[in-house]
Amino acid sequence: MADEAAVRAQAEAVRRLKQDKADPDEIAKEVAKLLEMKAQLGGDEGKHKFVLKTPKGTRDYSPKQMAIRERVFNAIITSFKRHGAEVIDTPVFELKETLTGKYGEDSKLIYDLKDQGGELLSLRYDLTVPFARYLAMNKITNIKRYHIAKVYRRDNPAMTRGRYREFYQCDFDIAGQFDPMIPDAECLKIVHEILSDLQLGDFLIKVNDRRILDGMFAVCGVPDSKFRTICSSVDKLDKMPWEDVKNEMVGEKGLSPEAADHIGEYVQLHGGLDLIERLLQDPKLSQNKLAKEGLGDMKLLFEYLTLFGITGKISFDLSLARGLDYYTGVIFEAVLLQQEDNHVEESVSVGSVAGGGRYDGLVGMFDPKGRKVPCVGVSIGIERIFSILEQRVEASEEKIRTTETQVLVASAQKKLLEERLKLIAELWDAGIKAEVLYKKNPKLLNQLQYCEETGIPLVAIVGEQELKDGVVKLRDVATREEVNVGRESLVEEIRMRTSRP
Amino acid sequence: MADEAAVRAQAEAVRRLKQDKADPDEIAKEVAKLLEMKAQLGGDEGKHKFVLKTPKGTRDYSPKQMAIRERVFNAIITSFKRHGAEVIDTPVFELKETLTGKYGEDSKLIYDLKDQGGELLSLRYDLTVPFARYLAMNKITNIKRYHIAKVYRRDNPAMTRGRYREFYQCDFDIAGQFDPMIPDAECLKIVHEILSDLQLGDFLIKVNDRRILDGMFAVCGVPDSKFRTICSSVDKLDKMPWEDVKNEMVGEKGLSPEAADHIGEYVQLHGGLDLIERLLQDPKLSQNKLAKEGLGDMKLLFEYLTLFGITGKISFDLSLARGLDYYTGVIFEAVLLQQEDNHVEESVSVGSVAGGGRYDGLVGMFDPKGRKVPCVGVSIGIERIFSILEQRVEASEEKIRTTETQVLVASAQKKLLEERLKLIAELWDAGIKAEVLYKKNPKLLNQLQYCEETGIPLVAIVGEQELKDGVVKLRDVATREEVNVGRESLVEEIRMRTSRP
Repeated sequence: MADEAAVRAQAEAVRRLKQDKADPDEIAKEVAKLLEMKAQLGGDEGKHKFVLKTPKGTRDYSPKQMAIRERVFNAIITSFKRHGAEVIDTPVFELKETLTGKYGEDSKLIYDLKDQGGELLSLRYDLTVPFARYLAMNKITNIKRYHIAKVYRRDNPAMTRGRYREFYQCDFDIAGQFDPMIPDAECLKIVHEILSDLQLGDFLIKVNDRRILDGMFAVCGVPDSKFRTICSSVDKLDKMPWEDVKNEMVGEKGLSPEAADHIGEYVQLHGGLDLIERLLQDPKLSQNKLAKEGLGDMKLLFEYLTLFGITGKISFDLSLARGLDYYTGVIFEAVLLQQEDNHVEESVSVGSVAGGGRYDGLVGMFDPKGRKVPCVGVSIGIERIFSILEQRVEASEEKIRTTETQVLVASAQKKLLEERLKLIAELWDAGIKAEVLYKKNPKLLNQLQYCEETGIPLVAIVGEQELKDGVVKLRDVATREEVNVGRESLVEEIRMRTSRP
Repeated sequence: MADEAAVRAQAEAVRRLKQDKADPDEIAKEVAKLLEMKAQLGGDEGKHKFVLKTPKGTRDYSPKQMAIRERVFNAIITSFKRHGAEVIDTPVFELKETLTGKYGEDSKLIYDLKDQGGELLSLRYDLTVPFARYLAMNKITNIKRYHIAKVYRRDNPAMTRGRYREFYQCDFDIAGQFDPMIPDAECLKIVHEILSDLQLGDFLIKVNDRRILDGMFAVCGVPDSKFRTICSSVDKLDKMPWEDVKNEMVGEKGLSPEAADHIGEYVQLHGGLDLIERLLQDPKLSQNKLAKEGLGDMKLLFEYLTLFGITGKISFDLSLARGLDYYTGVIFEAVLLQQEDNHVEESVSVGSVAGGGRYDGLVGMFDPKGRKVPCVGVSIGIERIFSILEQRVEASEEKIRTTETQVLVASAQKKLLEERLKLIAELWDAGIKAEVLYKKNPKLLNQLQYCEETGIPLVAIVGEQELKDGVVKLRDVATREEVNVGRESLVEEIRMRTSRP
């Protein structure tokens, strides 16, 4: 605006010069100044220029990135289907009140839509709350489903570490009243399968139980009213040393140093069945009803995990707390133990790639009569996994195909566009994935180069001689071998050559 | 509100009764009435209850609906890949200014996000504008890509006819400077393929060209400034009779009756190559540069479509206008000719199921230097197609499986949960899709019933005798035949029996 005012002042000066019948040279100089200023302002065209970017914390996926993303999705969906899951979808936004009161402090990160008249809406923050709303709304008491979709959080993005404001969640949940720990064990089996299939390197799945945590807080002398806030301090143990966490508990949150020290002893414990057995004998914990229940179920869980043969990568870890309010039983979180990229400084902060737990109360919050539907589920953090695989592909210089085209229909001579189009229509109609260059007379070299660049394995070449003989010259791009194939057997030949071994 | 007033009136009556020291029985009666009315209102608990619904114009997809949706997606993606398309993805929201000035009057239907500090954002209205933004931002001048994602329009929903506020678009576009009409012809071939593959019944693809329309307006005596608004009147011809459209042109938009009648003669024309040839000889149209260019390209397009063998379902139709501002050349729209459901009254308004066209100027609107990237593309309207297929499935009572589970691991006797879990882990690890009931001691009948309900074809039964013999009893759910299979060959046997023929 200041610049515009300057331009106007300058124009005014020119006008005055004119009225005063000033020296034409003087006028010309002033006009030149004026034009220069206008140019600096960018002119009319410049004013309406777009900022060419995606919104903060979001990104486009290029074809190459999509190819990697599809690989990850396939591994995940394959595992979900292997376990008999159905699939559902829900809208990207929910009534604002559906999300209210479900995420505690994190609610401030919810994206609201503008009130344009009508309902107040918010973008979904996770897939769990919409799932619970779906169950209550449709009175479903029994389902095993997966849901893969984008969720939205107005968080501080850290995109190089795979933290975005728009990101995918891949959720698998089992809802229903069942015998204890069987569905919970299956969720852990699924995490184990997916992380193994994706070959992300060594990983560890930490397991705990909200009831054990609450029991532990009780026997350590934490007042009931401080359970939640002390739990959130414990949740920071993967990022902060114990001393800092203790200071937070005592200094900020007013816990007695004795209680904090007591907690400190427990939260350093991690192990397997042996630790569970030991804690079941623990004179204090064993007296607490909640803790005892949780430990009993933890023992059962480990027995099932032993049958599944996966205890080697599972650790019962008393320091695992997890943030979300709605968990009521088992909680778990999978972390990668090795960093795949070469940034040594990052290798400390290996993030979690999957997490989940039991939430037996959430559906009841939506049911008019408060009827509960016990649920347990897991969410795979695809963005972090995707970042790792993308970096690995970059490093390996592996060439990733972004199309599945089997054959390029080409010609060596001019004026054969019609013949190319006729042939490619035959191939398309037979289900062959085929391309043709959109040029009337492309050079053979350019056509071959296109195959090299995009990884198309075969070229079907039509020329006048081939047309006369009723054949097509089929060229193998890698070996450069060429054979004439009868037109009637071309489809079969292409299929045979491009079927996966 | 009326009810609340009634309750208050009733309470007032009770109070008056009390003050008058009325008969206690009378009071009790009034109190009972009051309580009943209060119960009908739902009481305090009711007031804070959630409204259990999805936002207006949106819906959840149940597992069964997802199974149908996946079929449609597969047909569409298969065709896109057959034509060598890559795939991209963009965020669900864009900077508000990215969408500004692209949709004409429809801009009022854009969903804005609330200003929570930071950038002003809007949900995408289609996939074309984000695609153009993506091309300009990444300086891509040459790509063939598809994009399947949800778009958002604050439109009046008509959900039974497949019109939603959140709906999928399946877009295929070819960007780049190529010889004329070759990519345009491929887009039409793709629409033809997809509609044929989906077996939706007879269809027609109407084709026109913005240049022919503009040329037609010019020779009919429409002033330049009225081209756009007269074009939008023509766009209504599929819903309104010519007389009404004419009245709008003359009455509302101030066109001369002669010009309108002139247009009226042209817009009733539709046909194929013969019509194109006739119009190329038309003494007026042939004198208009734009129309001549458009007709020349239309002729070329029909020659290519003849080579593709699809002219039988394509009609050059001078009444086709299409709403969006950004089209610059060929435009097209596919309509179903028969209604699939039995509602006769609906069979008139068979909606369009695909549409598209050439937009050579849109990318240039985003490029800082205005560099153009010619584009042509097609968008498949999945929701309408999905509605038709869903109704068809309902009518046929076809049983749709919502899982792919190959085998249920079961037992006839009690106390075999551990054995079931051991066996199912073996199957999962071998890649078999398997389920187990989450019960310690489920009844065999319940297990078999679960298979019947969910379409699981096989049951692997473990019992004490089978364990002793090192076998598993494999039961075919349909035939009820049972055979003992050696445990080491179980995986192979299941694979063989459940591989698709």
